[in-house]
Amino acid sequence: MLTVSLKDHQYEIIVKKGCLEEAGDFLAKIWQPQRVAIITDDRVAPLYEEKVRQAVTTAGFEVVTHVVPEGEASKSLAEAEKIYAFLAESGFTRSDGVIALGGGVIGDLAAFAASTYMRGIHFIQIPTTLLAQVDSSIGGKTAVNTSNAKNLVGTFSQPDRVLIDTDVLETLEIRRVREGIAEIIKSAAIADLALWHYLENLKDETDLLAHAQYVIIETLKVKQKVVEEDEFDNGNRLILNFGHTIGHAIEKTAGYGVVSHGEGVALGMLAINQHAEKQGLTPAGSTLALKAMIEKFHLPTSTEQWDEVALFEAITHDKKARGNNLKLILLETIGKAKIHTVPIEELKNYLHKEAL
Amino acid sequence: MLTVSLKDHQYEIIVKKGCLEEAGDFLAKIWQPQRVAIITDDRVAPLYEEKVRQAVTTAGFEVVTHVVPEGEASKSLAEAEKIYAFLAESGFTRSDGVIALGGGVIGDLAAFAASTYMRGIHFIQIPTTLLAQVDSSIGGKTAVNTSNAKNLVGTFSQPDRVLIDTDVLETLEIRRVREGIAEIIKSAAIADLALWHYLENLKDETDLLAHAQYVIIETLKVKQKVVEEDEFDNGNRLILNFGHTIGHAIEKTAGYGVVSHGEGVALGMLAINQHAEKQGLTPAGSTLALKAMIEKFHLPTSTEQWDEVALFEAITHDKKARGNNLKLILLETIGKAKIHTVPIEELKNYLHKEAL
Repeated sequence: MLTVSLKDHQYEIIVKKGCLEEAGDFLAKIWQPQRVAIITDDRVAPLYEEKVRQAVTTAGFEVVTHVVPEGEASKSLAEAEKIYAFLAESGFTRSDGVIALGGGVIGDLAAFAASTYMRGIHFIQIPTTLLAQVDSSIGGKTAVNTSNAKNLVGTFSQPDRVLIDTDVLETLEIRRVREGIAEIIKSAAIADLALWHYLENLKDETDLLAHAQYVIIETLKVKQKVVEEDEFDNGNRLILNFGHTIGHAIEKTAGYGVVSHGEGVALGMLAINQHAEKQGLTPAGSTLALKAMIEKFHLPTSTEQWDEVALFEAITHDKKARGNNLKLILLETIGKAKIHTVPIEELKNYLHKEAL
Repeated sequence: MLTVSLKDHQYEIIVKKGCLEEAGDFLAKIWQPQRVAIITDDRVAPLYEEKVRQAVTTAGFEVVTHVVPEGEASKSLAEAEKIYAFLAESGFTRSDGVIALGGGVIGDLAAFAASTYMRGIHFIQIPTTLLAQVDSSIGGKTAVNTSNAKNLVGTFSQPDRVLIDTDVLETLEIRRVREGIAEIIKSAAIADLALWHYLENLKDETDLLAHAQYVIIETLKVKQKVVEEDEFDNGNRLILNFGHTIGHAIEKTAGYGVVSHGEGVALGMLAINQHAEKQGLTPAGSTLALKAMIEKFHLPTSTEQWDEVALFEAITHDKKARGNNLKLILLETIGKAKIHTVPIEELKNYLHKEAL
């Protein structure tokens, strides 16, 4: 169990094999019996909705379920509006609560809806992908996409509790497991040398999943520390973006879904690190170490499809571009990140294909 | 000038004749030169948009304007989405800011959009109706309506500053002036006996407008005190709802726009007070005093159109209904409110036509 302590709010993250079945007890500890809405998608619903609903119903709550289509397209204002209507028609008031049961899309969407329905009702996360478990279930950023940009609209809002059941990873397809692993590698690289060494000693994805509880907790601790120090994303929280500036651009130019978030981040970390190493800004040999780690978990390292011009365009149109400079995250050493400000033009050097 | 002090945020409200022309200077004191979007409607735009734009441009800001249709129908997620698109296409980042120039609809809508665009960008209110000046510009509640309910979706978010120019009231139609006066009467009744006596000494709407600066400031002080003590609406802030439970129901059953918010509140205050006085819950004579005040400013007191059953239905479907009890706001005496909990059924007695 981890406790996240923010200025106005403190909440617990439970990481436990099989804890889905105890969801009712966990809820009863922090909520009075009331109405609970499970928001999930049509991939997760057949797998885990009944289990959660029964556990929560048994604990004395009145449960209703709203299912949205799986996929990034559901992270929209249109789906949020359907959730508002569902909650209103189910008679939900500010005393009631929402459970997000799903991956990052469900987590971001349900958290946004919960934080804005009647200006905020109770909210719990039950992330069911490795990526959501290590990444989006902590941080307090809710979001929906618009046709203009990903995550353009959102709020800062913390959950009342997060339940992470490692058993649900059994039903996750391997490409989505790898997507989570990319964030785990990133977290180790920017802030946890011990976790990095631990990952080096794992054989592959299966081996990592066998040690999921430990790896998830250690990864969460990295994000927890950074978020506690910078809840509203005005400073050092930026280091969580290691590999993300280029990663997002790769996702965007490839068309969302073609390259996964994790695949983009893996490629982004490599590209940034390679050029930084050439410049002497990051230790010699770190790119090779990073590449070996990424390859071991079958994440991509090839830049064959790379379009430097399109990537540069995508990044400079991205919200992270500010004025004439761009803040890049580099590794001071493996296990410690630093913020490095470069003129926008300099970014082109990081995007050269030969850099990989 | 009033300073509103909340736990995490402090901001100033400037009440000054002609301050629209000084908007640029006021902004420059708190914002770095950056992009500014004026969000306004097609009633206010021809009257004041150019004045504000010029003042803000002269102060070194880059200004763009987005105009929405006047009226409650614009307080929607669809209009919020258009604002997001406008800000994104204008290249707005978290360093930029939004000015809401208009009445309550514009204030609530623009504040909601500003508080959710990129999880919150800078925001200033320039309210141009008496109601918005005394009511919705303070309190930190942003909102949009959905087809299910008014204000169903929103956030708690405070502006960086509020500019109130009493000159803009000159172009406000008299019915909308009265709408603001209903909130002023309410504020005096619940928390400010001195303001109540001041209002008693005014002749009519014109006389009140001649003393707008004083009346607005005193009314704001009432709301300021209540909001500072209960920012997130979990306790005593409820007293601001004096007359509102029934008022909202009247608005809703009449069809929005037929009866104004202020007219509904005036009727609601009277209905509540009449029955409470009969029950000995509020001082004898207070209903007559309230009626005289409401009539002087040409707000309605007639319940001819009253449909008790429809009103009861509307209230019990309203979000303020909780379980089997309802919290009503009564006057302990004129100038001091109290929260009075009644069984839902008891509400019917407050709705009897003969009660007026």
